[in-house]
Amino acid sequence: MSIVLYDLAGADPDVRFSPYCWRTRFALAHKGLPVESVPWRFSDGAAIAFSGQGKVPVIQDEGTIVSDSWAIATYLEEQVPAPTLFGGGTGRAHALFVNAWADAVLVGGIARFIVRDMLDIIDPGDRDYFRSSREARFGATLEAVQAGRGDRVTAFRALLLPIRLVLRKQAWLGGAAPSYADHIVAGTLMWPYCASRFELLEQSDPVSQWHGRILDLYGGLGRSAKRG
Amino acid sequence: MSIVLYDLAGADPDVRFSPYCWRTRFALAHKGLPVESVPWRFSDGAAIAFSGQGKVPVIQDEGTIVSDSWAIATYLEEQVPAPTLFGGGTGRAHALFVNAWADAVLVGGIARFIVRDMLDIIDPGDRDYFRSSREARFGATLEAVQAGRGDRVTAFRALLLPIRLVLRKQAWLGGAAPSYADHIVAGTLMWPYCASRFELLEQSDPVSQWHGRILDLYGGLGRSAKRG
Repeated sequence: MSIVLYDLAGADPDVRFSPYCWRTRFALAHKGLPVESVPWRFSDGAAIAFSGQGKVPVIQDEGTIVSDSWAIATYLEEQVPAPTLFGGGTGRAHALFVNAWADAVLVGGIARFIVRDMLDIIDPGDRDYFRSSREARFGATLEAVQAGRGDRVTAFRALLLPIRLVLRKQAWLGGAAPSYADHIVAGTLMWPYCASRFELLEQSDPVSQWHGRILDLYGGLGRSAKRG
Repeated sequence: MSIVLYDLAGADPDVRFSPYCWRTRFALAHKGLPVESVPWRFSDGAAIAFSGQGKVPVIQDEGTIVSDSWAIATYLEEQVPAPTLFGGGTGRAHALFVNAWADAVLVGGIARFIVRDMLDIIDPGDRDYFRSSREARFGATLEAVQAGRGDRVTAFRALLLPIRLVLRKQAWLGGAAPSYADHIVAGTLMWPYCASRFELLEQSDPVSQWHGRILDLYGGLGRSAKRG
């Protein structure tokens, strides 16, 4: 039986752009687990009420329900130890820092470049909710939040310096092979990749080249992703 | 035979404040290795010429010479596997991200709060070199770089959010026990702790409380450090 994944989808159900769902998709692919993916929209709270909370990703594995991308990754590692996502307890503890950095620095940073673009790809039924909730969060209209992005993108790219420093010494954040640390950052970058045509990274950036290599993993899971 | 560590010292040879040497001091203490510490000043290039480069930390372990704090940590892990600093190859790979983040975000960030204070504690023979090299790096006088720090410190503290997010879930960056990830960040924070009296962190900050717990490790190695 496949694991069922509730995955945020756009108006086009094949467009998947959640940075957290992508972390889970890469983790599932890393484990080689078959997945039955269920497109989910912000307005589908009832569809995941069984999980006791209101956000995706949620997975259902036989009778077990797990929500939150980090909790899902640790669950998968326990259930299917190889190939490893974390390389043991200390590796998992260190990956939590990468997860926290991605959440604190990348997610908030990226939103300011694509949040208005997202309105064009999400389901029409999600648009009022999306605009009002995000405008309340940012204290500005989506248009104002995204404005001037061409002038701001250099400062954003500078925030990726830690990734560049790591890639000078090793091919993957996981070292000689991809680990969940790669999935965290690459999954987060799948969000702007799938939800916007804005060039957040320069093609010459080593981060962009590393992301290209992630796109090609797992039978081209990321490469074949439909972009909005 | 002890490992010899060349460690940056101030005018008072007991004041040690290099963020990189502190990473090494914690790593050596973690391994329980006896250390013979040699105070070193910026003007003592000749004293470490045997290492083929001009910066500390440098360690000499019998006939083996290793410089660069990251290289030293990986060397120590190979020579003395337990207690582990990294928890295996993936843990080491993930710790490299913490190292890169500390170098890219913390070191440059902290310098702007304490670089003028450092002039008062370093060796008189180092002062001309220190002022001219750092003023060239920052493109401003040490006084100008450090000015207005009370107004800037809130923004600096916000950069530590990834650490706070991790500490909500686990006691140490290494998980249930300290690892080299803890030494990287705590070692970096030993620099402002020993070189300045400026309150970079609020005492109520979980980062400050975690740092206090690091100060108490290894027989109070950090707690007993002489502050300039």
